[in-house]
Amino acid sequence: MFDHLHLPRGFSFAGISCGIKAQGRPDLALIFSETPTTVGAVFTKNRYAAAPVQYDRALLAAKPDGVHAVIINSGNANAVTGSVGLTNARLMAEAVERMLGLTPQSTLVMSTGVIGVQLPIARIQEAMPTLVQALRADKDGFFAAAQAMMTTDTHPKWATEQIRLQDATIHIAGMSKGAGMIHPNMATMLSVIVTDAQLTPEAAQLAMQRAADASFNRISVDGDTSTNDTAALLANGLAGGPLITSHTPEFGAFLAALTQLSTKLAQAIVRDGEGATKFVTVQISGLADDQAAHQVANAIATSPLVKTAIYGGDANWGRILAAAGYSGAPFEPESAELWITGGPNSTSFLPRLHLVSQGMPLEYDEDQAAHRFAQPELLIELQLGAGPGRATMWTCDLSHEYVTINGEYRT
Amino acid sequence: MFDHLHLPRGFSFAGISCGIKAQGRPDLALIFSETPTTVGAVFTKNRYAAAPVQYDRALLAAKPDGVHAVIINSGNANAVTGSVGLTNARLMAEAVERMLGLTPQSTLVMSTGVIGVQLPIARIQEAMPTLVQALRADKDGFFAAAQAMMTTDTHPKWATEQIRLQDATIHIAGMSKGAGMIHPNMATMLSVIVTDAQLTPEAAQLAMQRAADASFNRISVDGDTSTNDTAALLANGLAGGPLITSHTPEFGAFLAALTQLSTKLAQAIVRDGEGATKFVTVQISGLADDQAAHQVANAIATSPLVKTAIYGGDANWGRILAAAGYSGAPFEPESAELWITGGPNSTSFLPRLHLVSQGMPLEYDEDQAAHRFAQPELLIELQLGAGPGRATMWTCDLSHEYVTINGEYRT
Repeated sequence: MFDHLHLPRGFSFAGISCGIKAQGRPDLALIFSETPTTVGAVFTKNRYAAAPVQYDRALLAAKPDGVHAVIINSGNANAVTGSVGLTNARLMAEAVERMLGLTPQSTLVMSTGVIGVQLPIARIQEAMPTLVQALRADKDGFFAAAQAMMTTDTHPKWATEQIRLQDATIHIAGMSKGAGMIHPNMATMLSVIVTDAQLTPEAAQLAMQRAADASFNRISVDGDTSTNDTAALLANGLAGGPLITSHTPEFGAFLAALTQLSTKLAQAIVRDGEGATKFVTVQISGLADDQAAHQVANAIATSPLVKTAIYGGDANWGRILAAAGYSGAPFEPESAELWITGGPNSTSFLPRLHLVSQGMPLEYDEDQAAHRFAQPELLIELQLGAGPGRATMWTCDLSHEYVTINGEYRT
Repeated sequence: MFDHLHLPRGFSFAGISCGIKAQGRPDLALIFSETPTTVGAVFTKNRYAAAPVQYDRALLAAKPDGVHAVIINSGNANAVTGSVGLTNARLMAEAVERMLGLTPQSTLVMSTGVIGVQLPIARIQEAMPTLVQALRADKDGFFAAAQAMMTTDTHPKWATEQIRLQDATIHIAGMSKGAGMIHPNMATMLSVIVTDAQLTPEAAQLAMQRAADASFNRISVDGDTSTNDTAALLANGLAGGPLITSHTPEFGAFLAALTQLSTKLAQAIVRDGEGATKFVTVQISGLADDQAAHQVANAIATSPLVKTAIYGGDANWGRILAAAGYSGAPFEPESAELWITGGPNSTSFLPRLHLVSQGMPLEYDEDQAAHRFAQPELLIELQLGAGPGRATMWTCDLSHEYVTINGEYRT
């Protein structure tokens, strides 16, 4: 499948080991564009925003002339590290800028790993020649970078999209590491998405925000939000084609592709959730507005009772309704229609099973319900009225393995 | 310890088996006062309020002359049961009223158990003579009732208080069954508290609301809120003494005792949480107001990452700060001071350990921290600024056993 990987023009990638993690595992990644890029980025809303998040926010707020690089380390989150941590984030960026001869303020920084421990910054600085030498514009470089940003992820996560805009072929490629699934202090969802489309800074920011809202903000593994969550889009314009500005048809086409790619990355994160054995899609409709629908979807997707029932393969629809009931969203309990079936990617086609109608349980075959709840992919559809509000969320089950992974000691 | 049980005058209690649960386990309880009582009650905010909750709300809204009885069944929640369920709740109350010769609208109803299955109402009606005959005004009756309201509880939960008001000795006695710990569809926190104090209806309602806010609303096992949660206070006035009206010194004294009793019941529920191996007190201070402090306490007390770390005995303070950070409450991250130690009831006295100061980790002995996190009772104190806002919550850890219990099939 890697043969189909069409990377955007002008980007190169590297991933190496610099000694932050034990046993020489890859822990340092670099993504580089020779030509300056416009950037759209979204960050964690956690008040304990890590040093690299603070650094990137300040850099982007100063409206840089152009961003050329992203440096990422795993094994250490550089979070709750005070002014020393902020200095270290800046030193990481400056090391890249010096080595590549870039203008100041042209490198973003991301970190993921243990909280509250200072970065071994000297190791990162010393590894800079090796890191830059490893830069490659091909799939080997791309996967090396994706690998070096992993923590408890069991495999690298990536996706690509390609669209035609007027006479230009636009490429988008993204890599992510796991979210929510916070190994003892190994936090964070990180995503870097690169494209050779030509976007204004406003369009890049709006596109990343909208795409993240429809993808990374629709997943839940355990409901916890990390100190380091970041998704950044870098656009270098080398594909030619139209300059994409906000609210134009080209923007719509680009956003659709970016959203599709972000959704693939987000779903890959859930599928690789700590201890996850099942992938669950929660589709809510019928509420007064999308926000109310999202409230319901979120309550169901984060309920430990719903998630353990799914782990156990139990068609426990009462817990789904109960979670909707305490979500705080306004709806008439008597309006509930609930269906379940295997998820969209299930191997076997199973017609959907109607469990609840007009807020009351229907007579259904318990074996058929259990058969659907036992699928590796599950689709839960809950309609609560006739309003236009809709929301989809993706989540996983809550397993013994999750408790084991997260109950283990940090060291 | 049962010798110290001083029950309020004029109440009698019964608990029997009527065949809702399998194997003849107790499933029907009655609490009765010959003289009419004033009632204060709080109910679930879940939109799927069960039939008995709807019935009680309507009954109390009609300002009854006096309530004489509470009938409680376990094994069936009578929730998501539509108009048939509402009729069955009314039939339960009417069976009691007919058998005891009471005026209509003088009996409250509570149910707990499986959702979405109609009550076997005939069994309850047929058991009425046996139930009424079993009424006793002593501790045997009291514990039989407490036992008959259990579902996945491993033991009955009860507490008593006694206070002097002018020349009268006031008794308060309460019984509860488990909350949050929702066995496959076995939902609900139920509490019945009886007293021989003399309260106006307004004072009874205000006292129950305030006491519940400081106790039952401060606990979390898994963050899920059931369809049936109910806490009711019945006051028959047989102790004599002053008529307690709102906002008087007597009200303050009664409220203090009721809050203390409710807190004991709430803590007993957490200690008996499904799969719980540790009891955790989360104390937050320094925020702008109590509501913000409660937001922080709630985020920490319901975080699966915090709860699995505590299960694993891991001094993972990063997760505690991260949960505070995403709680949505406003505070300066740099203001954080974090201490941990064994809980107030720990067997061994451990001085509290300062883990974080001014938002930064302190140098501390990892073994000493792990030793505290390994205690069966844990106290987490987090100060976030110099404001007056404070909140305390009680929670338990998230264990393998929780996943096992809640992943099991319902039948």
